[in-house]
Amino acid sequence: MPLNDLVAKSAPSLAPLPSHFIDAAVRLALDEDLGRAGDITSQAVIPVGAQSEVTMRARKNGCIAGSDAARAAFKIIDPNIQFAPERTDGDTVSPGDVIARISGASRGILTAERVALNFLGHLSGVATETQALVRAIDGTSARICCTRKTTPGLRALEKHAVLAGGGVNHRFGLDDAILIKDNHIAMAGGVTAALKAAQNAAGHMVAIEIEVDNLAQLEEALAAGAKIVLLDNMPPETLKEAVALTAGRAILEASGNITLETVKPVAESGVGFVSVGWITHSAPCLDIGLDFEVSR
Amino acid sequence: MPLNDLVAKSAPSLAPLPSHFIDAAVRLALDEDLGRAGDITSQAVIPVGAQSEVTMRARKNGCIAGSDAARAAFKIIDPNIQFAPERTDGDTVSPGDVIARISGASRGILTAERVALNFLGHLSGVATETQALVRAIDGTSARICCTRKTTPGLRALEKHAVLAGGGVNHRFGLDDAILIKDNHIAMAGGVTAALKAAQNAAGHMVAIEIEVDNLAQLEEALAAGAKIVLLDNMPPETLKEAVALTAGRAILEASGNITLETVKPVAESGVGFVSVGWITHSAPCLDIGLDFEVSR
Amino acid sequence: MPLNDLVAKSAPSLAPLPSHFIDAAVRLALDEDLGRAGDITSQAVIPVGAQSEVTMRARKNGCIAGSDAARAAFKIIDPNIQFAPERTDGDTVSPGDVIARISGASRGILTAERVALNFLGHLSGVATETQALVRAIDGTSARICCTRKTTPGLRALEKHAVLAGGGVNHRFGLDDAILIKDNHIAMAGGVTAALKAAQNAAGHMVAIEIEVDNLAQLEEALAAGAKIVLLDNMPPETLKEAVALTAGRAILEASGNITLETVKPVAESGVGFVSVGWITHSAPCLDIGLDFEVSR
Amino acid sequence: MPLNDLVAKSAPSLAPLPSHFIDAAVRLALDEDLGRAGDITSQAVIPVGAQSEVTMRARKNGCIAGSDAARAAFKIIDPNIQFAPERTDGDTVSPGDVIARISGASRGILTAERVALNFLGHLSGVATETQALVRAIDGTSARICCTRKTTPGLRALEKHAVLAGGGVNHRFGLDDAILIKDNHIAMAGGVTAALKAAQNAAGHMVAIEIEVDNLAQLEEALAAGAKIVLLDNMPPETLKEAVALTAGRAILEASGNITLETVKPVAESGVGFVSVGWITHSAPCLDIGLDFEVSR
Amino acid sequence: MPLNDLVAKSAPSLAPLPSHFIDAAVRLALDEDLGRAGDITSQAVIPVGAQSEVTMRARKNGCIAGSDAARAAFKIIDPNIQFAPERTDGDTVSPGDVIARISGASRGILTAERVALNFLGHLSGVATETQALVRAIDGTSARICCTRKTTPGLRALEKHAVLAGGGVNHRFGLDDAILIKDNHIAMAGGVTAALKAAQNAAGHMVAIEIEVDNLAQLEEALAAGAKIVLLDNMPPETLKEAVALTAGRAILEASGNITLETVKPVAESGVGFVSVGWITHSAPCLDIGLDFEVSR
Amino acid sequence: MPLNDLVAKSAPSLAPLPSHFIDAAVRLALDEDLGRAGDITSQAVIPVGAQSEVTMRARKNGCIAGSDAARAAFKIIDPNIQFAPERTDGDTVSPGDVIARISGASRGILTAERVALNFLGHLSGVATETQALVRAIDGTSARICCTRKTTPGLRALEKHAVLAGGGVNHRFGLDDAILIKDNHIAMAGGVTAALKAAQNAAGHMVAIEIEVDNLAQLEEALAAGAKIVLLDNMPPETLKEAVALTAGRAILEASGNITLETVKPVAESGVGFVSVGWITHSAPCLDIGLDFEVSR
Repeated sequence: MPLNDLVAKSAPSLAPLPSHFIDAAVRLALDEDLGRAGDITSQAVIPVGAQSEVTMRARKNGCIAGSDAARAAFKIIDPNIQFAPERTDGDTVSPGDVIARISGASRGILTAERVALNFLGHLSGVATETQALVRAIDGTSARICCTRKTTPGLRALEKHAVLAGGGVNHRFGLDDAILIKDNHIAMAGGVTAALKAAQNAAGHMVAIEIEVDNLAQLEEALAAGAKIVLLDNMPPETLKEAVALTAGRAILEASGNITLETVKPVAESGVGFVSVGWITHSAPCLDIGLDFEVSR
Repeated sequence: MPLNDLVAKSAPSLAPLPSHFIDAAVRLALDEDLGRAGDITSQAVIPVGAQSEVTMRARKNGCIAGSDAARAAFKIIDPNIQFAPERTDGDTVSPGDVIARISGASRGILTAERVALNFLGHLSGVATETQALVRAIDGTSARICCTRKTTPGLRALEKHAVLAGGGVNHRFGLDDAILIKDNHIAMAGGVTAALKAAQNAAGHMVAIEIEVDNLAQLEEALAAGAKIVLLDNMPPETLKEAVALTAGRAILEASGNITLETVKPVAESGVGFVSVGWITHSAPCLDIGLDFEVSR
Repeated sequence: MPLNDLVAKSAPSLAPLPSHFIDAAVRLALDEDLGRAGDITSQAVIPVGAQSEVTMRARKNGCIAGSDAARAAFKIIDPNIQFAPERTDGDTVSPGDVIARISGASRGILTAERVALNFLGHLSGVATETQALVRAIDGTSARICCTRKTTPGLRALEKHAVLAGGGVNHRFGLDDAILIKDNHIAMAGGVTAALKAAQNAAGHMVAIEIEVDNLAQLEEALAAGAKIVLLDNMPPETLKEAVALTAGRAILEASGNITLETVKPVAESGVGFVSVGWITHSAPCLDIGLDFEVSR
Repeated sequence: MPLNDLVAKSAPSLAPLPSHFIDAAVRLALDEDLGRAGDITSQAVIPVGAQSEVTMRARKNGCIAGSDAARAAFKIIDPNIQFAPERTDGDTVSPGDVIARISGASRGILTAERVALNFLGHLSGVATETQALVRAIDGTSARICCTRKTTPGLRALEKHAVLAGGGVNHRFGLDDAILIKDNHIAMAGGVTAALKAAQNAAGHMVAIEIEVDNLAQLEEALAAGAKIVLLDNMPPETLKEAVALTAGRAILEASGNITLETVKPVAESGVGFVSVGWITHSAPCLDIGLDFEVSR
Repeated sequence: MPLNDLVAKSAPSLAPLPSHFIDAAVRLALDEDLGRAGDITSQAVIPVGAQSEVTMRARKNGCIAGSDAARAAFKIIDPNIQFAPERTDGDTVSPGDVIARISGASRGILTAERVALNFLGHLSGVATETQALVRAIDGTSARICCTRKTTPGLRALEKHAVLAGGGVNHRFGLDDAILIKDNHIAMAGGVTAALKAAQNAAGHMVAIEIEVDNLAQLEEALAAGAKIVLLDNMPPETLKEAVALTAGRAILEASGNITLETVKPVAESGVGFVSVGWITHSAPCLDIGLDFEVSR
Repeated sequence: MPLNDLVAKSAPSLAPLPSHFIDAAVRLALDEDLGRAGDITSQAVIPVGAQSEVTMRARKNGCIAGSDAARAAFKIIDPNIQFAPERTDGDTVSPGDVIARISGASRGILTAERVALNFLGHLSGVATETQALVRAIDGTSARICCTRKTTPGLRALEKHAVLAGGGVNHRFGLDDAILIKDNHIAMAGGVTAALKAAQNAAGHMVAIEIEVDNLAQLEEALAAGAKIVLLDNMPPETLKEAVALTAGRAILEASGNITLETVKPVAESGVGFVSVGWITHSAPCLDIGLDFEVSR
C-alpha cells in the first residue's frame, strides 16, 4: 500500500478548539482593547438600558473561521448577549450572507464588536485563502497544508482556520515532529547522516520528514529509509520524476513559491501534499461587517 | 492657528518599545513553537558544539519593523548568540540587503529562527504597506494613520510598525480616546446629542472624535464644538468641500475604502489624516530569509 | 467657544468597570489572603452547614466605591452566597447605613469578608476624599481630577473611585496622553521647543498638556499653540491672572499642595480643573463593618 | 517563663524581600503605567542621548520602606541606570535628606520615576505610621503589630514596611495561623467549644489566637488552654486586669480603636502586643520628590 | 496542661480546598495534555454526538484524595458532563469499588480521562500511604504529619491528601513557621543562640520549632524556652527518654528514616508527632481505572 | 527495511530543556515554598554575611535528572551563588558521590535547598527507575518508553528524566500523535473503521498508533495499514507470535502490568518498545542530601 494512501484524504470533520483555548486568546485581545478604563465612548454616549439587534454579514466571498472566538468576545463582555450563528467554521459565504445575529445590551455589543471582527476577519482570511488553493487543485490527489510561518500568538487558531478552509496541518511546533532542512543536512554531514541521527534519536511516535533539493538527494533519502520527504522548490516536471522515483515508498510534499496560479501543475505531479506559508502569514482579512438593525 | 497645525507633521523619531513588552510577546511565541519538548530536530541532528554565522537578508523591497523582537527571540533562546543589526526599524531595504548578522551556537540559531522571522516579516509587512501609502501622498499635508483593526494580541507591535513606516497612530484602544461612530450617533439621538454627552463625560485629557457621513453632519458637529472629525467614505470632492467648510476649526480625518491607488486625491483634499485599516489587518509578510554563511 | 466649555461639566453617569477587570484584582487579593491552605479558622471552627445573614454597614460618613469588588469577593469564594446591595458606587452613606445584605454559607462569608472590606474600604476612602473636594468647590465651574499618584496595582479601580466621588480622571498612564513637565521642558530647551516636539510627534488623538510655573511660561505656551496647561503651584491671584491671560484659548488645570481648606479659592480663580494627588495616594480607608445578624 | 518572653522583643534585623517578589509587583505597576505605548511624552520631548543625575529626597520626616521596589522600577526600565541608595528600609529621614542618587538615560529615569515614587511613598507611609506608634510606646514591653487590613495586592510589601517601622507582623493570611473571632465563637457555641475545635484541628505548627470581649471570656479561654488571646476594645484598666489575671499563661494582644494618642496607656497595661489596622490601610503617603540635578 | 494536649488529636473534618485553587492546577495539567491542538484522536475517531456512561473504579485498596480535581477535569473540558461521586476524599476503597459515575459526551470524557486519573491516582497514593502509617500507630497518642518534601507545584494538593489520609500538616512553606535545623544551629552559634534569635524576631503568631540530635541539645532547647522540638533520627528508647525529660513542657516530633515497619515503636515512645517525607515525595500512584459501561 | 529499524536505537545524546521552561517550573515551586514572607527562619537565625560551602551528594544508587532545575533554584534565589556540577543528567551515582558543589551566601543556600532537592530527587527517581528497566532488557532490541501517566504539571520534566535514564518518549500529549485505544475502537465501530477514520483525518506529520488486545485485531490492523501497534497485556509467547505475524510491517509496542521482574521476556519477544506508566507516576524520590562543609 503506498504510504500516501494512509494519510488524510478528505476534509476532516472540524472539531471545535477547546473553549478555554479560545477564551484565553479572546481575553488577551479584549484586555488589549479595553485597556485600563474600558469602552469610554459607549459609556459616555450610549444610554444604559439601550438594546440592539445586529447582524454580522460577509461583504466578500470567503470561508468562515473563528466564529467561536467572535462569540466568545461578546459573551465575555456580557454573558447576556445572545449570539445566534447562521454560518460556522468551514462554511462559505457570499457578500450579504448573514454569519450571525447578535442581540442584547447596546453597550456590550459595541464594546466587543471590534475584537470579535478582528478574530473573525483574520481567521476567515486564512480559511479563505486555504480554500482557494484547495479548490484550485480539485480533482488531484494532493492536499494543501500549512507551515510554521504563522502570526505570533495565533498559531493554534490559524492552524484551525486552515482545517476550516479544507487544508490539513503540518507540525504545530518544533517539538511534535522532525523536519530536517538544508542547514540541518549541511551541519550533520549529509542527507544520510542527518536522517540516521534523527531516526536514532526519535521515538516511534515522532514523524520524520527530510527536505531535499534534487533527485539525487531524494534517492539518498529513500535509501536511508525516509518515509516523508519535502521536495523544495522543484518545477512540476521534476516533481513528477520524484513521484515516479519514489514509487510509493514515501509521502511526498512539495513546497516553495507556490501561488494560486502555479498550484495546479504542482498538485498534478502526484505529490501527496503541497505546503504554503502565505495562507497563514499573508492572508488578507476577510471583510465582515456588523449592521445595527434595531436599537431601542 | 488651524488645529491641524498642532499635530504630527513629520515622522517622529522612533523610540523602541519597552523591552519587557517585546520580551513578553516573544516568549509567548517561543512557547507556542517550542511546545513541551523544544526543537527536537536540532537536538537530534546538529552536533552539540556546532557554531554558525548567519545573515538575515531582505528578499523584497520593504521597510523594516520588529528588529527588537527578532533580536529578543535569539537572545531568549541563548544569551550568548550575537545579534548585530545592520538595519533597524524604519529603514528601507532592497532584495539582498543585510538586516542583521547573527552568530553563535547553531542549535540556538536554528531554534529561534522561525519565531524571529515570523515577527520581523509580519511587522515589516505592516511598515512596508504604511510606507507605500506615506510615499504615495508625499507632498501633501496629510498623514497616514492606523485603526483598531489589528491582529489580536499584536496591537502594540503593529502600532509601532506603523510608526516605523512613517505613519502615525490613532487611538490604541477603547479606553484612551473617544470615537463616536454612526451607531453611537443613532443611539444617542443625533450628532449634537452624542457629542454633548461625550464632552460632558470626558476629562480634559481625552480626545473626542466624531464620525460624519455628510456635510450636514459635519456642520452640526462643528457647531457643537467638535475638534476632530472623521469623514467617512467621502469622495475627494466632498472632502475638499469639508475642508473648506471646516476652515481650520477642527482636525479632519478621511477614512473608508482607501487604496494605494486612491489615496493621493484623498490626501490632496486638504484633510490632516487618512486612516487605513488594511495596513495592520491585511499587510502581507515581508519576505526575509536567513542564510547560513559559515557553520563549523 | 472657550475650550473649557467642551469638557466634562457634570458628574458622568458611572459605568461599571468590566467585570473581568474586577475579578482579576479580587482573585489576586483572595490568593494573597487564602495562601496555600485557605481559611483554616473557619474550616476548624464553623460547622459545615452553618448559614448566616450579615449586613455590611457604614460606620462613618462617606461615599461608596468598590461595591462590585466586594460582591465579587463573596461570589468567587462561593457562587451561592447572595449579595444584595442597598447602596452602590457614588452613593453617600452615614453611620449605620446598610450598604449590602449578604447571606449564605457562614464559612464562605467569613472567608471572603476581609478581602471584600479591604477593597470597599480603600476605594470608598478615595471616593469620600474626592467627594469632599467636589463639595468644597460646589458652585464654581472647576472640576476635581486625579493624578498618576495611585496605589501600585490599583490604578484603574482608584480612578473609578474618583469618578464615584464626582471627580474626573486625568490620564491613566504614560501612554494615553502627553504631559510635559518642568524637567521635560528643561531638557527639551524650553517651553516652545518642548511643545513643538510633542505636537510634531503626537497623533491627533493624543491630548497634550504642558506644565508652567509662571505667567511668562504660560504666554509662551499659548503662543506655541498649547490647548491644555497645568498651572503648577500658583496662588489663587496668579491663577486668576492666568485665566484672564488665557481668555478661553486653553483649558487650565491648577495643581500643587491643594487641601480641603485651600481648594475653594483655587477653584474660584476660573480654572477648569483642580488636580489632587492625595485623593488616591493618601485617602484613609472608609470604616465599614460586617455585622452577623443571624447564624444557624 | 511567661510566654510573652518567648516572642519578638526587639526590632528584627530587616531581611530584604526576595527580589522576584519585588520584581513581580513592580512589573505589574509598570505595565499599569506604561500601557500599550510606553512613555510617549519622554519619547517625543527628551533627546535620545540625554543623561541626567537626579536625587531622591524626603520632603517630610518619616521612615523609609520600599527602597528595593524603587530601585527595581528604574532597573527594569533600563538596567544601565545607576541607583545609589543613601538610606534604606528602616532608616529615618528628615526633609531634605537624600534617599538615593540616580543617574543614567534621562528618558528611562523619567519613565520609571512615578512608579518608583508610588511604591516608596506608599510603603514609607506605612513604615512612618508604624514608627510613630513604636516610638509612642517606647519604654513599655509591648510591640506594635499589623493586621490583615491591608491594601489589596500589596500585603507582603506592607507587612515588610511594618517591620521597617519597627513593628512586628501578625499572620499573613487566613491560612498560616488561626484567629477565632466573635462570630466564630458565636457559631461554634462558645469560647471553649471554638477553642477546642481549633486545637483539635490544627497541626502543631499553627498558632491559635482567640478574641475575647471581656474578662469572663478571657478566663474561659485560659482555662481551655489558650496561649494567645486578643483583647478586643478594652480600656487600659481592663487590660491591666487581664494581664494580672493571665499571669504569663498566654500572650496578650490589645486591639480596637487605638490611635497615636491612646496607644501609650494601652501598652503600659502590660500586654505583649498592640495591633493596629490603620498603619496599613490608612497611612498617608510619605512625601518624597525627585530633583533633577544635572541633565545633559 | 501538657502542650501536646492542645494540638490536633483527631482527624479534622476535611474542608475542601477552595475551588479556584483546584481549577488552576487542573487547567495547568489540561493545557499540558491538550497542547496546541487538543485531543486529535477523539476528534478523528469518535462520532460527534456519541454519549457514554463510565465508571471510575479502584483497582487496589486505598484511600481517596483528589476527587475535586478529577471532577474539575471533566467539567472544565465540558460543563455538561455529569460527575456523580460515590466516594470522596478520605474514604477508603477496595478493588472494584466505584469512586464516581460519569456520563456525557464521549469525546469530552475521553479527553479529560487521563488528567482526572493522574490527579486522583497521585493524590490518592499520598492519602493511602498516610493512612497506612496512621493505622500502624493506632492506639498511640501520636499523629502522622508531612514535610516540605513535596512534588514541585503540588504542595497544597498533597498537603490536603495528607489530611484525607488522617494525617496532619506540618508547615506549608518557609514563611509560615520557623524550623531551626542543624545547619541553622551551627551557623547561629548553638541551640540557645539560634532559639533566642528566632524568638526575638518572630511575631507571636509564628510557631518556632527546633531540631535536636541528642538529649543534651534537647535540654538546652527546653531551658531556652523551646515549645516545639524535632527529635531527629533517634531510636525509640532515646525518644522515650526525651519524652520523659520534656515532661509536657514542649511538643515533640520524631523524624528520620521512619518506615511502615518502624513507625509503631516510634509512636509508642510518647512523642506527639511523627513526620514522614516519603508519604508525599515517594507515594506510588493508587491504581484507579475508568470503565466504559455504555456508549451510544 | 523493517519499520522498527527506523526508530530510536541508542540513548539519544541528551539536550537540555530550554532554560525558560526550567525557570518557569522552578519559580512556581519557589513561590509555593516562599509564600508571602520568604524564609523567615534563615532571616531570623543566620547572620547576614554568612557564607557556606555545601556539597550535594547521592545517598543511594541512581541516575541523575533535574540538575538544571536544582541549579536554577539556587540562581533564582541568589545569582551570586556558585553551582558547580560534578554529575549531570544521565549520569549514574553511588552513595556518597558528589553531584554538585555549591557556595555562596548561607541564607540563599538554605532558602533554595528544599526546592532544589525536591526537583532533583523526584526527577532522578524517574531516571533511576527508567534506567533499571533499560538495564534489565540490555541485549534485546527493545526500548523502554513512557506514557501520559505523569505527575500533573511536570510532564515535560519527567519526559526529560525518562531520556536521562536511557528511555525514549511516547507522545507528549493528546495533540501530537494519535493513539487509538479500546474505547475508541468500540465507539468507532471496530479496528478498521477507527484506523481509517484516523488515517483520513490526520496530516502526514502525525503518527498513528492503535491498541490491540489479540492477534486477530493485530491482523485486522495490519491489513488496514497500521504502522504502529500497541499490544496490550499480552504474555511473552503471544508477543512473539505478534512479532512473527507482523514481519516488520509495523512497529510493535508492548504494554500492561510490566515490572522490573517481567520486563526481560517481554523485550525478548522482539517488540520494538515496552511502555511503562509507573516510571513517571510512581517512581520513589532518589535520596540526595546537602551537606554543609564550611560555613563562616
